[in-house]
Amino acid sequence: MAKEKKVEQITDMEVDFAQWYTDICRKAELVEYASVKGFTILRPYGYAIWENMQRIMDAKFKETGHVNVAMPVLIPESLLKKEGELVNGFAPECAWVTRGGGEELEEPLAFRPTSETMFCDHWSRVLHSYRELPMLYNQWCSVVRWEKTTRPFLRSREFWWQEGHTIHETAEEAIAETEQQLNCYADFFENVLAIPVVRGQKTEKEKFAGAERTYCVECMMKDRKALQGATSHYFGDKFSRAYDVTFTGRDNKLQYPFQTSWGSTTRMIGAVIMCHGDNNGLVLPPMIAPIQVIVLPIAQHKPGVLEKAQELVDTLKAAGLRVQGDFSDNSPGWKFANWEMKGVPLRIEIGPKDMENNQCVAVRRDDREKQFLRLDELTEKVPQLLQAVQRDLLERARKNLEEHCYPAYSLEEAKQIQEEKGGFIKTMWCGELACEMRMKEEAGMSSRCVPFKQEQLSDVCPICGKPAKKMIYWGVAY
Amino acid sequence: MAKEKKVEQITDMEVDFAQWYTDICRKAELVEYASVKGFTILRPYGYAIWENMQRIMDAKFKETGHVNVAMPVLIPESLLKKEGELVNGFAPECAWVTRGGGEELEEPLAFRPTSETMFCDHWSRVLHSYRELPMLYNQWCSVVRWEKTTRPFLRSREFWWQEGHTIHETAEEAIAETEQQLNCYADFFENVLAIPVVRGQKTEKEKFAGAERTYCVECMMKDRKALQGATSHYFGDKFSRAYDVTFTGRDNKLQYPFQTSWGSTTRMIGAVIMCHGDNNGLVLPPMIAPIQVIVLPIAQHKPGVLEKAQELVDTLKAAGLRVQGDFSDNSPGWKFANWEMKGVPLRIEIGPKDMENNQCVAVRRDDREKQFLRLDELTEKVPQLLQAVQRDLLERARKNLEEHCYPAYSLEEAKQIQEEKGGFIKTMWCGELACEMRMKEEAGMSSRCVPFKQEQLSDVCPICGKPAKKMIYWGVAY
Repeated sequence: MAKEKKVEQITDMEVDFAQWYTDICRKAELVEYASVKGFTILRPYGYAIWENMQRIMDAKFKETGHVNVAMPVLIPESLLKKEGELVNGFAPECAWVTRGGGEELEEPLAFRPTSETMFCDHWSRVLHSYRELPMLYNQWCSVVRWEKTTRPFLRSREFWWQEGHTIHETAEEAIAETEQQLNCYADFFENVLAIPVVRGQKTEKEKFAGAERTYCVECMMKDRKALQGATSHYFGDKFSRAYDVTFTGRDNKLQYPFQTSWGSTTRMIGAVIMCHGDNNGLVLPPMIAPIQVIVLPIAQHKPGVLEKAQELVDTLKAAGLRVQGDFSDNSPGWKFANWEMKGVPLRIEIGPKDMENNQCVAVRRDDREKQFLRLDELTEKVPQLLQAVQRDLLERARKNLEEHCYPAYSLEEAKQIQEEKGGFIKTMWCGELACEMRMKEEAGMSSRCVPFKQEQLSDVCPICGKPAKKMIYWGVAY
Repeated sequence: MAKEKKVEQITDMEVDFAQWYTDICRKAELVEYASVKGFTILRPYGYAIWENMQRIMDAKFKETGHVNVAMPVLIPESLLKKEGELVNGFAPECAWVTRGGGEELEEPLAFRPTSETMFCDHWSRVLHSYRELPMLYNQWCSVVRWEKTTRPFLRSREFWWQEGHTIHETAEEAIAETEQQLNCYADFFENVLAIPVVRGQKTEKEKFAGAERTYCVECMMKDRKALQGATSHYFGDKFSRAYDVTFTGRDNKLQYPFQTSWGSTTRMIGAVIMCHGDNNGLVLPPMIAPIQVIVLPIAQHKPGVLEKAQELVDTLKAAGLRVQGDFSDNSPGWKFANWEMKGVPLRIEIGPKDMENNQCVAVRRDDREKQFLRLDELTEKVPQLLQAVQRDLLERARKNLEEHCYPAYSLEEAKQIQEEKGGFIKTMWCGELACEMRMKEEAGMSSRCVPFKQEQLSDVCPICGKPAKKMIYWGVAY
């Protein structure tokens, strides 16, 4: 039996970006396809990334007063149908439980595609007074949407997410919550995932089914395609009215609360892969890396090497880092390739010569820069190096984003830029659906968002020539 | 509008234990019924207890090398059916998805009732060599079992749990894992939930469908009924063979790995309620209490009281405790009743007189013992008091368990003790199903377990008179 299994090559991203992506998903052991069509398995390494994301995000939510709950996973058809726009948006992709305990159910139950209806139903029974508002709820769970074509993390029939649901006394407070959570996502993308975002509002066409407004963070991948990062919705009192959620207000009259919801999903792992990965595999931001530092002994059969390597692991662990040693009998070359594929931010090598010089070699995963570190300054230098990786990943991604945002002044120009360069195309827009449809049909781009940061590129919509209302971003999206 | 909503009375446990239990579940705002029959909602306070349980347990699992994963929630019928005993055990209570994306599915998909089949299916594709063993997996999720009668936490159509699934190179290792995880649960029950347990093995009749052995921890509630706390199963290579999970062994031959699974659920919250609660409501062990200390200002309109109370909150928070102040304009009496209902382990009261004396009043939830604490020794004394509550809850529960374990030497005696006193009845047993069935039919008791700690009560089975093999525990169970 071969001692060493091969670290398989992955497709170059320049050759076939889609295949490169799938190769990383599988060969970094993040996901595996399940035997249920369209479903995936989050393997230990992929799930550990998700756990790190959850931990950081959950703490952020709690800091601003949010609490977690668990709502039932099945929603009666009649309940789902109470709000027309939502059911029209989601019913086509619902999965239905029709049998239980050996009998046909009287009413089919939908596997939750999203839980606005369940939260409203619950609130209609427990909310009484303005004193109980706001209710700031969140849940971590999986949802099912019966997608036709699927890709790991980006689109699958089951995915894992958090869905925040809140109700408030006034519209102003609900809108402030919607904005706060959007900013919470933006901070998370930039400071944790090292992915810069464009913050903005979705058009009427692209907003969430049933929402009054949908805010979003949009990211750019290395292939210059767009990826919707996370969304935050304001519902007004539309659902409250549909589900009869009421409270006694300060004026002693019955009122309807104002509602928000906001969500982010395991698709963020896909964003990390496509924003930072390279032809050697995954590149993980240190903040979410399950293993931040991998320690590799060189010439490990030489006396004292394994012991010294273990000592480094222990020292760095004690300093609060997520560290692992690879003391297997695979060759150093195999180990390098393996841990690069897995995207570990920092590799530390230690061999007999290093030991003589009281040093080790540190190699960054992102730019492969190599340097010697004195062993007595390890606990000081390694965290600094990890911070540098985190910072540089963001800067490189920001450069990619900024260099590929192009203004366009006609539909033809927009189309040409997208074909030649890709990226985000920014134009003025009249606000009409017709022009949005034409951009989609003729240039293959969907609207990404009307960014909060507006520029006055011109006075007219380049598609219809009528007066422009806003600047908008277009792109080819995942 | 009334300023103060009433803290509703609950039924006394001596009057109607079942109603007392349900009252606490609802009035401590742990759960609420959903509009889907048999399903419950975990409300913020109930979910926060579950989060504390999860955090502590997850850390324990990880310490012993387990990693988390996420498996698909839907299982194809054909996959579920590959192992006969499992499917016979679970098929009758499965919920089935038969429609998705607007179409009838070619094959019905079961909402997971448990995930042995999915793990085996996955392993059959990713396992190659003995070098990859053991695989020590766990997942946190919800499962659905179509129960006929339901009760919050104890039995509901959806419940939340962790399910550990592991495969090993040898039977010995798998058995050691099964035992290790059973002991992990026992430690968790005793040291975290303050619930003493009996460790043992389930009979053939009571073991998990498809398992070779099922170990369990059994607890006693205040009504002296039994509650199965958690279980740990050894499967041998039965599932490996059914699902064709193989690996190349050290001898270079294809082998089947040996398998375990082990689970614990939100039913543990039900155990905590029924083991520690009283007629004033919930009593929570400090280790899992979402709020460990509630600080109540007395005569809060008096100058400086609110500020001082806030200062105590800040001081105790800084000391690492989970603390909250109740500065609402409800009366102290209402607040006392409310936070007692919610089971907060320690109440601290501070009023003008206390401030003058540089002290506060501390009242334990469990025995209502009241004492004065000097403010300058707060961060030292409060953790000690919480430790005392944790310890005394366990001791009181242990006393309840020990006082209500009775030996019996005939079926008639066993029946009589159960009727008059309740509790666990221990007898010798021949090991035959027929005697187990007779005990159920004639004395209304199921076998709880064959305890690891054996006693030689006599030489014969008191039911059939044949030679006895083991001592066994009987009880009326939830």
